[in-house]
Amino acid sequence: MSQHRAPLYEALAAHRDSGALSFHVPGHKSEAQGYAEAESAYRQILLLDRTEIAGLDDLHHPEEAIKEAQTFAAACFGADETFFLVNGSTAGNLAMILATCRRGDLLLIQRDAHKSVIHGLMLAGARAVFISPLWDPESGLSMGLAAEDVEQALDRYPEAKGLLVTNPSYYGITNDLKALSGLLHDRGKVLLVDEAHGAHFGFHPDLPASALSCRADAVVQSTHKMLTAMTMGAMLHVQGPRIRLGAVRKALAMVQSSSPSYPIMASLDLSRRMLQEEGEERIERGLSAVRRVIGYLRGHKRWHARALTDRMVDAGCRQDPFKVALYDASGRLDGFALKDGLEQQGCYPELADPTYVLLAFSLASTQEAAQRLIVALERIDEETRDEGSETSPGSWGAEAAAQRISEPVTFDWEVIHEGTGTKVAVPVAECAGRIAAEMIVPYPPGIPVLYPGERITERTVSHLTRLAALGSRFHGHDVTAFGTVPVIDMR
Amino acid sequence: MSQHRAPLYEALAAHRDSGALSFHVPGHKSEAQGYAEAESAYRQILLLDRTEIAGLDDLHHPEEAIKEAQTFAAACFGADETFFLVNGSTAGNLAMILATCRRGDLLLIQRDAHKSVIHGLMLAGARAVFISPLWDPESGLSMGLAAEDVEQALDRYPEAKGLLVTNPSYYGITNDLKALSGLLHDRGKVLLVDEAHGAHFGFHPDLPASALSCRADAVVQSTHKMLTAMTMGAMLHVQGPRIRLGAVRKALAMVQSSSPSYPIMASLDLSRRMLQEEGEERIERGLSAVRRVIGYLRGHKRWHARALTDRMVDAGCRQDPFKVALYDASGRLDGFALKDGLEQQGCYPELADPTYVLLAFSLASTQEAAQRLIVALERIDEETRDEGSETSPGSWGAEAAAQRISEPVTFDWEVIHEGTGTKVAVPVAECAGRIAAEMIVPYPPGIPVLYPGERITERTVSHLTRLAALGSRFHGHDVTAFGTVPVIDMR
Repeated sequence: MSQHRAPLYEALAAHRDSGALSFHVPGHKSEAQGYAEAESAYRQILLLDRTEIAGLDDLHHPEEAIKEAQTFAAACFGADETFFLVNGSTAGNLAMILATCRRGDLLLIQRDAHKSVIHGLMLAGARAVFISPLWDPESGLSMGLAAEDVEQALDRYPEAKGLLVTNPSYYGITNDLKALSGLLHDRGKVLLVDEAHGAHFGFHPDLPASALSCRADAVVQSTHKMLTAMTMGAMLHVQGPRIRLGAVRKALAMVQSSSPSYPIMASLDLSRRMLQEEGEERIERGLSAVRRVIGYLRGHKRWHARALTDRMVDAGCRQDPFKVALYDASGRLDGFALKDGLEQQGCYPELADPTYVLLAFSLASTQEAAQRLIVALERIDEETRDEGSETSPGSWGAEAAAQRISEPVTFDWEVIHEGTGTKVAVPVAECAGRIAAEMIVPYPPGIPVLYPGERITERTVSHLTRLAALGSRFHGHDVTAFGTVPVIDMR
Repeated sequence: MSQHRAPLYEALAAHRDSGALSFHVPGHKSEAQGYAEAESAYRQILLLDRTEIAGLDDLHHPEEAIKEAQTFAAACFGADETFFLVNGSTAGNLAMILATCRRGDLLLIQRDAHKSVIHGLMLAGARAVFISPLWDPESGLSMGLAAEDVEQALDRYPEAKGLLVTNPSYYGITNDLKALSGLLHDRGKVLLVDEAHGAHFGFHPDLPASALSCRADAVVQSTHKMLTAMTMGAMLHVQGPRIRLGAVRKALAMVQSSSPSYPIMASLDLSRRMLQEEGEERIERGLSAVRRVIGYLRGHKRWHARALTDRMVDAGCRQDPFKVALYDASGRLDGFALKDGLEQQGCYPELADPTYVLLAFSLASTQEAAQRLIVALERIDEETRDEGSETSPGSWGAEAAAQRISEPVTFDWEVIHEGTGTKVAVPVAECAGRIAAEMIVPYPPGIPVLYPGERITERTVSHLTRLAALGSRFHGHDVTAFGTVPVIDMR
């Protein structure tokens, strides 16, 4: 029965409807005074924008409506304990790491991690051993970690506290988390999962399994990304005996506002209720919009959607059907040009890379949106049919990384980031043994070859030399253009 | 002219009105699907809940609408550079400290600081020397720092990076920031101000001066608390040459979501425009509601509002007129009971302590709200006229702290907070020389006598012994009841 309730939203709405008067913050007093032409946009939500007054509980010491809402969420997603986040998955990643690592502790990290993971390492003062994901040369996409690599890293670094993986990837590719959790738990270590893009997993037969169902110890989900919460609404789920809940609570109190947003928290509650009550049906409706687009693309000479490659299938990967990596098989338009074309038609994609435009559908996607996308693609095809010349897209010569398992990298944000004259540019050929001062990110595939603080090996030098010779592109510091790597000046 | 614009809100509204289709996050696609009875509350705001697509800029690398909105805010508040915050003043305090202190650096801290300041010290691994605020025995309220104490602390700790003060206090009491900024700048050190409760300062003749006008180097303001932004909307202002902007940017990128909320950011933009265009007029309107309440209280035999005491006036304190510290001069109702009574009448105060109920008015407060408060107080007076017995309120025997300037306290969150059997309770009389494992907070005045990690001196032992003998109350660990202090077990 409880799943039909949204206790936090209900408590807020009851307070609003009670006509209670505010002699407390926020200062807007639930009136959109001075909002002028924005008044109609904000009027209703400001009525829910309250604070920790009697009856509305306290996110940092939940005992009433927030506790109940979190308990319902834990039951829905299959966790022992669920924490509502108002500062995005960012806060969840920071807290997972702060609660797991003391200063100097070592954590295994999937190399293509979100920057909040790196920030968590910096704040914790932890050391990281990076494990490179499997990388699919046909598609140029990350395939997640190989169990053998994790096993080898655990053999080499038995002091590691555990492993943090990013699953699914931004492009919706997942790998076999069950194998990883088994490996880690056999050695008494934790599996932490940044599942920011997978809050919907496990709620429809066409979707991959959720990280919690694969026995991950702690899982961060952006409820706003693939479900229906307001932006910054996210959840941190914990199960089993390996994560210290007290440390999680204290870490979250550090990295989240002491005045959390009630509209965002209540949207988490509402999103959970929607998922539990009618999630499969709504996901099916969203998937039927995706299927319309996929059906159109299937017969198309130029516009293709990236399907799982044979190598991915063999590696046990699955794909989130809501993520469509679109590309021009004629090679006339690269990802950036195709994104521009779509935006000119009023269709805003999630991102572009040199090859793909990534479209993020969701359970709220409609047939109408699918149809308008198809019309836009038809128009772009007409307008660019004779543009440039045909090429075969995707030449993914380089590997994703110089080595599958890095040496330990010490993170210390102020040394690396404050930039007080400690940085010097050194020619690639001469930088073996030096410590990188910036991230070095060739793309594709956009996976950092070097993190700030990472020692540069001979293999990395060869790898970067080869990338520069191939004319590879880089985010940030351009190794191809400069022929150098910024390193920490030790003099 | 520019002050009449709200560039970020305008960009968002233009995108909404363009009919653009979302193939990106958030998953709700700006429809309140599945929100059921909450649909009308969320419908309009979800239309503004977008992400970093073309035209909507990027909080972490602002170049367009967000940059423009921040530039307008800097001009309005008198900063060189303003950063929008979506994770509350919490994020601003963390970033101010992370950008100022490397590991082991020393910072002077006003002892009655917000917990986010302590969290910032922990994340930075900084050392703190606590300076006790002046404390007014008549009212039991903190009066801010004395310049002499700051000078003495600077003499004793010339290596300090600067000073972080909380100004105004929660109760709206301010002290002389100009004297402090002069002292610090003469020695090349920074003045950081947690002005969470003073975003409106300086915009009406009846309000205290703003920290920026007193030449503070960095100032954090909760725009949602005393102005009209959505909760979690705040700003970090910087001026002058002493704060490294690059470090601030990087610290903010660490502690704020990589998917910041556009409705919150746009509400900062709208709040700034309101303040600039019609702030003084609206503040005057809010103050007239306060004056109605004060007028009523002036003649009342039981309900009094705390005015500045002679000692406060002599110390140069001012008071935010929007904060009314109400108390029962007959002593029949303590602060908690008065708060309960008001809530039963539908009037929700900001907080209660043993003596006061703190009422937070704002520029959005109305005459109607003032009148309903007066009616509620009349009713409570009638109902409780014969309750309990008359006492004289406020017996403020104890001093605010054992010593005005502490020894340096090293903050290291995982040692102090992870609680892996390192804590032991020791009788008060025997704890000199030990390191406190928890905060010890007698109230009134609610100012921590000991912070976790702080060495316990002989003077602190005498102070705590006296407090326990007086039967003082404590937040958290109750020294009176247990006769002990939790200390770090060094064995």
